[in-house]
Amino acid sequence: MSEPSTCLPLTPDSIRQTHNRIKPYIHRTPVLTSRSIDKIASSPNPRAYLADDPPGIWADDSHSTSNGNVDGVPKFHLYFKMESTQRIGAFKARGAFSAVTHLIEELGLDTLRKRGVITHSSGNHAQALALAASTYDIPGFIVMPSISTKSKISGTKGNKGVEVIFSGSTAPEREKIVNEVIEREKERKGGGGPILIPPYDHPDIVLGQGTAGLEMEEQFQAMKRSGSVKGCSSAVEGSTIEGGNERFDAVLTPLGGGGLLSGTATWFSRTDDKQGKRTLVFGAEPSFQGANDGERGLASSPPKRIEHVKSLTIADGVRTPVGVIPWSLISDKSKLEGVYSVTEVEIKMALNLILERVKVVIEPSSAVPIAVVLFNERFRKFVAKKQKEEGSSIPWHVGIVISGGNTTVEALSKFFSEGWMTETEDTNFESERQTGQVTIDGSKKVEDVAG
Amino acid sequence: MSEPSTCLPLTPDSIRQTHNRIKPYIHRTPVLTSRSIDKIASSPNPRAYLADDPPGIWADDSHSTSNGNVDGVPKFHLYFKMESTQRIGAFKARGAFSAVTHLIEELGLDTLRKRGVITHSSGNHAQALALAASTYDIPGFIVMPSISTKSKISGTKGNKGVEVIFSGSTAPEREKIVNEVIEREKERKGGGGPILIPPYDHPDIVLGQGTAGLEMEEQFQAMKRSGSVKGCSSAVEGSTIEGGNERFDAVLTPLGGGGLLSGTATWFSRTDDKQGKRTLVFGAEPSFQGANDGERGLASSPPKRIEHVKSLTIADGVRTPVGVIPWSLISDKSKLEGVYSVTEVEIKMALNLILERVKVVIEPSSAVPIAVVLFNERFRKFVAKKQKEEGSSIPWHVGIVISGGNTTVEALSKFFSEGWMTETEDTNFESERQTGQVTIDGSKKVEDVAG
Repeated sequence: MSEPSTCLPLTPDSIRQTHNRIKPYIHRTPVLTSRSIDKIASSPNPRAYLADDPPGIWADDSHSTSNGNVDGVPKFHLYFKMESTQRIGAFKARGAFSAVTHLIEELGLDTLRKRGVITHSSGNHAQALALAASTYDIPGFIVMPSISTKSKISGTKGNKGVEVIFSGSTAPEREKIVNEVIEREKERKGGGGPILIPPYDHPDIVLGQGTAGLEMEEQFQAMKRSGSVKGCSSAVEGSTIEGGNERFDAVLTPLGGGGLLSGTATWFSRTDDKQGKRTLVFGAEPSFQGANDGERGLASSPPKRIEHVKSLTIADGVRTPVGVIPWSLISDKSKLEGVYSVTEVEIKMALNLILERVKVVIEPSSAVPIAVVLFNERFRKFVAKKQKEEGSSIPWHVGIVISGGNTTVEALSKFFSEGWMTETEDTNFESERQTGQVTIDGSKKVEDVAG
Repeated sequence: MSEPSTCLPLTPDSIRQTHNRIKPYIHRTPVLTSRSIDKIASSPNPRAYLADDPPGIWADDSHSTSNGNVDGVPKFHLYFKMESTQRIGAFKARGAFSAVTHLIEELGLDTLRKRGVITHSSGNHAQALALAASTYDIPGFIVMPSISTKSKISGTKGNKGVEVIFSGSTAPEREKIVNEVIEREKERKGGGGPILIPPYDHPDIVLGQGTAGLEMEEQFQAMKRSGSVKGCSSAVEGSTIEGGNERFDAVLTPLGGGGLLSGTATWFSRTDDKQGKRTLVFGAEPSFQGANDGERGLASSPPKRIEHVKSLTIADGVRTPVGVIPWSLISDKSKLEGVYSVTEVEIKMALNLILERVKVVIEPSSAVPIAVVLFNERFRKFVAKKQKEEGSSIPWHVGIVISGGNTTVEALSKFFSEGWMTETEDTNFESERQTGQVTIDGSKKVEDVAG
């Protein structure tokens, strides 16, 4: 990894610079809106839309979501930043290209091609780094748990010049192999050996992931200016510009290791709005088996980072505890407004609505912030209260980063097998204990490091 | 329904006129491309990508799909017209608005508001007509089988001024109720009673559905001119304009009642290309339990429309036999090049690839033409042979109309439950007998009239 001393400071300007560096290599993913989801989110009881006999969605839609908060029910216009269509199917491509391009600036391409880069990951970060390395003909060493799914292994191997090395599943087992490979390469070629690029706990990664927020805001502003949404199932209603306000009222992202959330919170920490208002940034976590380490850490007094998490939440991309650098950003009240958590059934309900109503495939981790908007009563009350205070009749414009789309039909099949929603809130604990046993790749292994 | 004598002739010009009439009411749905799917479709063995250990997709992608046919393997650039994001989630909105707007021209809005419109449908046509009627404050009477899923019933009911009347499931049972409602309304209000709008067997419907092909071609031409694809996961490679050729080489749609296919074939029957070439139009059907009535009817000598089909194919939107008017168009060799069919497992494999690789949700019927491109060896050999004759190094540009996206997570869960693909081609018959028992809405009822 680049020496932290050579990294840009963790500021919005640095995210802008990083974006300029990486944008030739990443997709500018689309932003989607959905009138159906807006209507459901702005209704008193979003759960009703999961019933066998859901309320109609098309009736009266000319004035369904344009009424402001008059009844204690929050009103939303949601904007989904579809990183599920990013290269390798997840936002992780941003951080990987950020880290690799910075290393090239710092060390020069020749040196990097001699040394190579290395990481350990069973998920999206593995494929992201493999892609970034192979783009520059830099040798990539990816340590993957041997229990990783074959498709993920072959998706990583498929990149030219990338070597996959297998390890055990725990963090120490994986780190041991990383060190062995570094030593092996040092002996073989001399020099410092391959450079470690961690999945989230580094400034370059945080700055790279923050570029999704930058793009999403630019796209939102363009949509508001044009008064319409392109490439999408529905036009934006009630989106006329009022008082030159072209910022999101709020933005949510999933919270796992914290690269995405801390980068996003950094981007939106600007207060260049005329009214001095700021986009409020929120993190979203699963509550299952304590995966809400961010929420719990912020709630303790004084706030303290929780270092270990062992959860089998279906949101497998966010099982990891928050990293040190991301924590330093998200525990800053001037950057992050708060973290909210949801149950496994709530995550599945949100996933259901996105699959059936928006008709796009997203991974369970990406459904977590949507579940917060739809089902977390504390969050909904917070928004309703703010809207009442503002006395505004305009729904909140809320951006949600859809972190990725890497799931399988087999996993979806398990998530939604018979009776998936019969659990009531009262039995959530029991139902979650069961559903939590099912992991995306069918394994029972808890892993400390996601990504 | 409008008197056929007042309908426009079934020509490309009429489709253009119809499009001008309905476009304020429908979405201009996006066209997506996918480098992954192109690569898979252009490989010698697309099935390999369904394996546990699929070939890499990202390696060497700079030159993967730009080589022409040198090895007997067809090469494709696919363009997906996403009618899954059309209003009500399917192309049927086009035909319904076409029929209703023509009726308004013919009879005047006042008369139509007095009489109302009526249809029988358990599927997308019901919701489409309900939407079109309620848009104009015209009373809509929708006869639905009482076994229809609650969500479809409430989706239809949710439109203002729409009455849902329940019936049995067979065509005679449904038609009986339709006639009863017409008589009831005649007595109640005098006059001619509500006007029947059938799901596909009428010129207005055919012309309406043909507008999807018109839009898709316009969008394709714009994409080729700009050299890029917007709102999509990947840019179009190798899409530089050669010799001013801006037409699709081929277009495929699903074939059920035939409204969509015959409208599409009508639009592309023009030969205004400089080289006198024409876009070849193909239909795609499931072979399960004889649902390939179009293919079989065209194969008989002389070609003859098959009037009855009883199939429980998972592609529930295309279980119906081809209608009389659609048949008159698709049995015309100057309009339709041919019809190909695929097995249930092939449909699921195509659905799998679209869900996992393109990350969009489509209904099984929409996966049928994709399955033809990927898995029908007769079709693939036809294309490879043509490409060899042309001596061209450019992949075929092939448009596919994704007819709809109305499915449920429960249905997907059943389609992809354990062992869904373990069947080999040899055991397809047996496996399909099983999978065919599962219908989208969980019912076991065969229905003659889809839509």
